Amino acid sequence: MIYFNNDYTEGAHEKILERFIETNMVQAPGYGFDEYSKRAKDYIKTATKTEDIDIHFLSGGTQTNLIVIAASLRPYEGVITADSGHIHTLETGAIESIGHKLLLLPNKEGKITATQVQELCESYWKNGAKMHQVQPGMVYLSNPTETGTLYSKAELTTLSEVCKKYEMKLFIDGARLGYGLVAETNDLTLQDLTELTDVYYIGGTKIGALFGEAVVISNNEIKRGFRSIIKQKGGLLAKSRALGIQFEVLFEENLYFDLSEHAVKLGMKLKEIFKELNIPLKYEAYTNQLFPILPNKILKKLQGKYVFLEMNDEDEENTLIRICMTWATKEENVDNLINDFYKLMKE
Amino acid sequence: MIYFNNDYTEGAHEKILERFIETNMVQAPGYGFDEYSKRAKDYIKTATKTEDIDIHFLSGGTQTNLIVIAASLRPYEGVITADSGHIHTLETGAIESIGHKLLLLPNKEGKITATQVQELCESYWKNGAKMHQVQPGMVYLSNPTETGTLYSKAELTTLSEVCKKYEMKLFIDGARLGYGLVAETNDLTLQDLTELTDVYYIGGTKIGALFGEAVVISNNEIKRGFRSIIKQKGGLLAKSRALGIQFEVLFEENLYFDLSEHAVKLGMKLKEIFKELNIPLKYEAYTNQLFPILPNKILKKLQGKYVFLEMNDEDEENTLIRICMTWATKEENVDNLINDFYKLMKE
Amino acid sequence: MIYFNNDYTEGAHEKILERFIETNMVQAPGYGFDEYSKRAKDYIKTATKTEDIDIHFLSGGTQTNLIVIAASLRPYEGVITADSGHIHTLETGAIESIGHKLLLLPNKEGKITATQVQELCESYWKNGAKMHQVQPGMVYLSNPTETGTLYSKAELTTLSEVCKKYEMKLFIDGARLGYGLVAETNDLTLQDLTELTDVYYIGGTKIGALFGEAVVISNNEIKRGFRSIIKQKGGLLAKSRALGIQFEVLFEENLYFDLSEHAVKLGMKLKEIFKELNIPLKYEAYTNQLFPILPNKILKKLQGKYVFLEMNDEDEENTLIRICMTWATKEENVDNLINDFYKLMKE
Amino acid sequence: MIYFNNDYTEGAHEKILERFIETNMVQAPGYGFDEYSKRAKDYIKTATKTEDIDIHFLSGGTQTNLIVIAASLRPYEGVITADSGHIHTLETGAIESIGHKLLLLPNKEGKITATQVQELCESYWKNGAKMHQVQPGMVYLSNPTETGTLYSKAELTTLSEVCKKYEMKLFIDGARLGYGLVAETNDLTLQDLTELTDVYYIGGTKIGALFGEAVVISNNEIKRGFRSIIKQKGGLLAKSRALGIQFEVLFEENLYFDLSEHAVKLGMKLKEIFKELNIPLKYEAYTNQLFPILPNKILKKLQGKYVFLEMNDEDEENTLIRICMTWATKEENVDNLINDFYKLMKE
Repeated sequence: MIYFNNDYTEGAHEKILERFIETNMVQAPGYGFDEYSKRAKDYIKTATKTEDIDIHFLSGGTQTNLIVIAASLRPYEGVITADSGHIHTLETGAIESIGHKLLLLPNKEGKITATQVQELCESYWKNGAKMHQVQPGMVYLSNPTETGTLYSKAELTTLSEVCKKYEMKLFIDGARLGYGLVAETNDLTLQDLTELTDVYYIGGTKIGALFGEAVVISNNEIKRGFRSIIKQKGGLLAKSRALGIQFEVLFEENLYFDLSEHAVKLGMKLKEIFKELNIPLKYEAYTNQLFPILPNKILKKLQGKYVFLEMNDEDEENTLIRICMTWATKEENVDNLINDFYKLMKE
Repeated sequence: MIYFNNDYTEGAHEKILERFIETNMVQAPGYGFDEYSKRAKDYIKTATKTEDIDIHFLSGGTQTNLIVIAASLRPYEGVITADSGHIHTLETGAIESIGHKLLLLPNKEGKITATQVQELCESYWKNGAKMHQVQPGMVYLSNPTETGTLYSKAELTTLSEVCKKYEMKLFIDGARLGYGLVAETNDLTLQDLTELTDVYYIGGTKIGALFGEAVVISNNEIKRGFRSIIKQKGGLLAKSRALGIQFEVLFEENLYFDLSEHAVKLGMKLKEIFKELNIPLKYEAYTNQLFPILPNKILKKLQGKYVFLEMNDEDEENTLIRICMTWATKEENVDNLINDFYKLMKE
Repeated sequence: MIYFNNDYTEGAHEKILERFIETNMVQAPGYGFDEYSKRAKDYIKTATKTEDIDIHFLSGGTQTNLIVIAASLRPYEGVITADSGHIHTLETGAIESIGHKLLLLPNKEGKITATQVQELCESYWKNGAKMHQVQPGMVYLSNPTETGTLYSKAELTTLSEVCKKYEMKLFIDGARLGYGLVAETNDLTLQDLTELTDVYYIGGTKIGALFGEAVVISNNEIKRGFRSIIKQKGGLLAKSRALGIQFEVLFEENLYFDLSEHAVKLGMKLKEIFKELNIPLKYEAYTNQLFPILPNKILKKLQGKYVFLEMNDEDEENTLIRICMTWATKEENVDNLINDFYKLMKE
Repeated sequence: MIYFNNDYTEGAHEKILERFIETNMVQAPGYGFDEYSKRAKDYIKTATKTEDIDIHFLSGGTQTNLIVIAASLRPYEGVITADSGHIHTLETGAIESIGHKLLLLPNKEGKITATQVQELCESYWKNGAKMHQVQPGMVYLSNPTETGTLYSKAELTTLSEVCKKYEMKLFIDGARLGYGLVAETNDLTLQDLTELTDVYYIGGTKIGALFGEAVVISNNEIKRGFRSIIKQKGGLLAKSRALGIQFEVLFEENLYFDLSEHAVKLGMKLKEIFKELNIPLKYEAYTNQLFPILPNKILKKLQGKYVFLEMNDEDEENTLIRICMTWATKEENVDNLINDFYKLMKE
């Protein structure tokens, strides 16, 4: 079986494993004070063209989300998020577990708008803070979103402005950030993200790392005691070299973006075929994720050979599925899949 | 500089890294459902000679402690621990951060006794539960302790009995468990631990793994929803293979214990020399940690070449230090250290 | 100005204040061990015709909700509630603040159905517990609801059955319970509530007390350590007599229900007039709350003399308001209001 | 039986109950917006001679402690307290329950010193913040302490200075504040407290109120969103008049201090007799609490008629007890007690 169902089916890019081996017996301090982590941070500072930021490496997305939010909010503040946001749908109440309510906005293709946020805040602040309701303290976005859509620089700028107006933090979950940044339609850079948000993270787990996310903090309030919160929430690795080495390898040259491009290029190749074969896509696709709506009889035949993520029944005869390309996807597997689509759709 | 200051200075045992490479491009499910994790669990079940246990792999000690305790207690229950316990001294309030108070008992060489626990419980339960005080719900031990001492089977048995009597869970932090189990004076087996406790963990980070702790749960209450708590607290790796592979390699043959023996053997070699040279040890040493009290002038000279953990000033002329042997310690480094001790003490 | 905007505008029923004075200098134990609390509990046991329950007195609704829920759930469990539920809309994230996520169902006139709950649970449990999502652990209802509607015995019975099926607790917020129990359309008794739920409360604050809610617990799991949780969450009054006396007065004879009837009778009187004057009600009204949709020009004129709660604009020319009758409402005030309605509507 | 065991055995001062009755049918807004609360706040501002403070009324000590601390600390910060502090010994882990660790200092007669605090902070901050340990964020004192001792203005000033130096908040638990402020040896005023601390509270429950504590906040950070935290933690009374009226009555004239003086005067009267009869006091007594060490045979005889709080066995033949005078203590009861002491000690 060939797995296209998610973006964490393989291990890590071979250069990372090689570096693990090369450096293995070097004795290094732990808890973030190793040389690999320091260098990785320098590479990321260069990539963001910003000096005045704090960078921390964490193990996974949920851990990162809960630590960032714990560092950002007072007890009565909540997080504005799309109702499709990962923190709402797939994290077992991690954010509530640290005491914060989510303030849901209906998503459009995974996204929310500055206008929606503005309206929510206006309603809360009308006639002074509403003490019976949770105060909006942060806006959480993901980019790319859960459905693979992207925020433009213009959209992010207006969201950032609303956040400033209402003294809220802006946080971007970048679990798949690389796949977004290399998309044809993207107009955001790491520098833009650093300037427009208070905090965001560069996802490694889904893009070449065995595990790991790099948090980039520009807001000074969030920086305060961040390390202590990482430790308190169980996110601090004794052998922090394991994270430092991975991000060093990904950012010392251009590997992170090269891997991202590999996946997105394959995604676009597959997208072309869907267009040609008139297979509709549920959401605009410019990154590594595609959400085609497949006839069930086609899907059934493919399932002998491939694994997809079945999202839901679109109607009685069609199913919405997710197909993920990754840094590790072999082009021949995609070509085989394309051939099988051709054959089945032309039968 | 040669580091003897802690037990996480190197990476992972080479067999683990090799296995990472061999299996790297195999596509595997995540979140604990990979084959490596399944096999690793089977090996551990064999090692504990127990079938009816749940095993979960986590990334580090603090994470493990907080997740186990979250799964074990009702809101008003607290954890009895030695005042030298890691959860009290070195985890940034992780346990309080999830809502639970620690009930401190004065330690003797890092240990507490069944009698101490019994007295605390008697006092709490006298005249019925004391609603103004936290109810003792769990006893937390570490074995080996922070100072390298060990619980005997007899001690653990009486502690287990007190726990049962007062309906408390017994939890052992086994961050250095292997180093304890291979000690000359140890009379506990993994099977004993499984029978006598409700939950414990087998530490990997300090014994051959890059990171990773294996939680072994025999209490059915604690088993309930444990995976959900792991996810909620940010402890679930997407690529759970990273943990599964490590514990598979450590337990498929005897590697975990071989590595433990290597470190302890070196520790005992060094201990002999301390005896010979009349360098006093603060605590009984039978595992990988030694706590000698060194004359400051000797210490100063050694510090040009070696790094130790300075614990505290014993008096004006002597300092208590910690020296750690690990799975990765080179015998030649220990021999050099021994020679330097000889030279310096005989000067 | 005459206030009809909520049900806590006056102090307490005069009999309560008199009893405060009569008993004031009697020396009594605190923290729930006073004689008044004991007798009040006995009266409530008689009223529920159940012996095997625990009763606790708390100060207000939010406090009660958060303490009950803290006592009921494991960390990864959440609370199913109508999206109109008080715990979601008006408690500043109190439930999230103790770590639990709310699982929202769309309300119909403030209510949810057994079918909705069943579907949510089916979806969660399909293919085993979903570890990335919060497990439904409790169903929270209010009766009467926020919009004054009532659950029938049949509805509550099926809800109770679904809860049992999925091992969830059933909890009823009875902040206005009395007003519901005396409604013409009600077919539930305190005994029914005690049998069908795991825990509920009898609201005092809105029905004659200065403050106070009586929690009735039949589920043994929830009973465990409940007092300790009250204390821990800051809900335990030193002078618990202040609560005991109030519930003793309310339940030693029939005062609680007499006061409820007074308010509901006035509500029904007003409702008749609305029918007569063709003023539409947004929700069925059988208790002390009415939700008429008023022409703005009428509303404006009334506002010189009366205070209502403006809910929202129904359309450009009409506004949805809430009018509350309470145990303290003077009939002459209602008569004046009725006369004013007549005059204004006939103009 | 006559109770001297604690300071909450009676109801409320009669003027409070009378005011309840007088104002009972006045319709008032709730949740802190009633006129009584506003006036009470003005009276307290006058008493503190400070305008720029926020005042909030809460129901009890544990509730107040947990709300104040929730409003004051970031997640990784803890509270320095004497090991005899109420938040450590008698609040069922309330502070840990909201996520914060207590940093214990050994008490001397219930007190801690600026030097102790300084040393703890120096140790924490030496070589930069220690990310494995909880950061000291607040100092919690009680005045009078649990054992009835008092902080002098000089002591409080140096404690305040240390707090400023290490950017920590200073918080005084004033559950018995009045009894302290009227003590012969006291040199602190409400104005001093307001200037020297970031937040403190004026206890009502133990001094004339049925329940209630008035929180006085001068630190702007703590003020932020305080009302929202009160609501979130279940501390906001719908009928806030119940608190407003009590503090209005206590502070509109000098009642709070008159009642305090009554109790302290009786305490000093009893103290004289203890001196005369050579009954030793465990702690200096200048307020309403006395801690005599009584011969067990005397104690036994008194226990037929009086109730004291037995603290612990001082030795085999003597017991340490607590005797409380309160605003409600009848002088004749104290006189009877004195007579009985005379008789028994002279036998």
